[in-house]
Amino acid sequence: MTYCVGIKLKSGLIFASDSRTSAGVDYISVFCKTHRFSVKGEREIFLLNAGNLGTTQEVVSILRREIQKSVEGNILELESLFDIASHVGDTVRKVMSRLPSDSNGNFSCSFLVGGQIRGESQRLFRVYSEGNFIEATKETPFFQIGESKYGKPVLDRIVTYETNTPDAIKCALVSFDSTMRSNLSVGLPINLYYLPNNHTSTHDEEPVDVAEALSALLDEDNEELENVRQKWRTGLQKVFQDIPNYDWWKSSINLNRID
Amino acid sequence: MTYCVGIKLKSGLIFASDSRTSAGVDYISVFCKTHRFSVKGEREIFLLNAGNLGTTQEVVSILRREIQKSVEGNILELESLFDIASHVGDTVRKVMSRLPSDSNGNFSCSFLVGGQIRGESQRLFRVYSEGNFIEATKETPFFQIGESKYGKPVLDRIVTYETNTPDAIKCALVSFDSTMRSNLSVGLPINLYYLPNNHTSTHDEEPVDVAEALSALLDEDNEELENVRQKWRTGLQKVFQDIPNYDWWKSSINLNRID
Repeated sequence: MTYCVGIKLKSGLIFASDSRTSAGVDYISVFCKTHRFSVKGEREIFLLNAGNLGTTQEVVSILRREIQKSVEGNILELESLFDIASHVGDTVRKVMSRLPSDSNGNFSCSFLVGGQIRGESQRLFRVYSEGNFIEATKETPFFQIGESKYGKPVLDRIVTYETNTPDAIKCALVSFDSTMRSNLSVGLPINLYYLPNNHTSTHDEEPVDVAEALSALLDEDNEELENVRQKWRTGLQKVFQDIPNYDWWKSSINLNRID
Repeated sequence: MTYCVGIKLKSGLIFASDSRTSAGVDYISVFCKTHRFSVKGEREIFLLNAGNLGTTQEVVSILRREIQKSVEGNILELESLFDIASHVGDTVRKVMSRLPSDSNGNFSCSFLVGGQIRGESQRLFRVYSEGNFIEATKETPFFQIGESKYGKPVLDRIVTYETNTPDAIKCALVSFDSTMRSNLSVGLPINLYYLPNNHTSTHDEEPVDVAEALSALLDEDNEELENVRQKWRTGLQKVFQDIPNYDWWKSSINLNRID
């Protein structure tokens, strides 16, 4: 499995992905699931993938080859992030259409596509196996793909569009911790990217340069990650112990028992 | 959807289920998903169901009719909990075999079966749609069925076989809170049961009576439930704020960028 998160904050975009791919527990490999396409100052585009590795690698390879061969309408040329999400969707459709739909194999995949192009706001999309896509908003500021459920509650509780960057990064890491504890097929290292928001809303100004993305690769030896994980673990247990015990049964309404 | 948890502690068994059934967001109903079969002092058996409501209701109806008609080998007569789990599995198989396997509808279901029969230890089983089943152990003391992933991390972190009853109940409720926050199709009230462990391990003693089960029905108006949910929420946020912020990028290893 895979776990990837993309968060769109007022202060910038955060992307995080795990690195484990498994075709069964006896065939586990390390793959980077975040792909960066950048032109310094002009655009920073991130593509994160989950799902069938064959499908996602083919999609990413096609997109990269288009850039190498300077094919018209490649990711480094397209005018807006909407066009890029749409192009990724088209490429997914093309790859999926060649795969057997009646096979037992699950070839489906999903992508997060986000970033910034000079003159445009930061945007974040989630592209489905069918090639369609949705965009993150202020009300729904994060997307997850892959093994997303274990790590969703903490994001639901903490992250909003207004959350500051360090908190959102901490929260993403806690979310990864919960996922990795509950599902062995999600594993370290975590690829983490932060793209500060350089967009100015004044329309008659010259568009400012897109900020440079910052990256970190967090593995088992990373003390700060270990510290977050351990503080969260012990903190949770403390919160838990601090909730008073009640005698539930006293306040209970007896069920209509069918004995 | 549904969310049910069964926990086997040294001190007893805990069962909890939500009450929401949905066939689409425009058709939501309240159903009790915990079924109790008891003979005072002799046996307390709990059956919790998740999955297709048609399938699970048919299984439970067959089991109840067998009791009403005193059919040989009904749940109140079978000698051990293993036999009961096996019988539930057989009944599931029988019901499933009549349903079309090639239809688009998903008829699958799963059950938790647990409790105690006089002279036997408490036992907890998880029965699958295929009729096979597994048993909880000291190392794996809880099972979840239905929408299980959102609520699993907190159980993974807190519950062991040695956890005391009030803590395990609190943890089950927190697990429900996380699930209900992330999935609208899981909803209150929560049916909660606790069956204290009366088993003595001395073999030459007369078997002691099975304890009476305690029950609670927790809905929106339940102050203690609201208190747990609220204390957990604020506690989590505090733990979160107490984790120091780091400058991740300083300690980071630069990724091998393919720009």
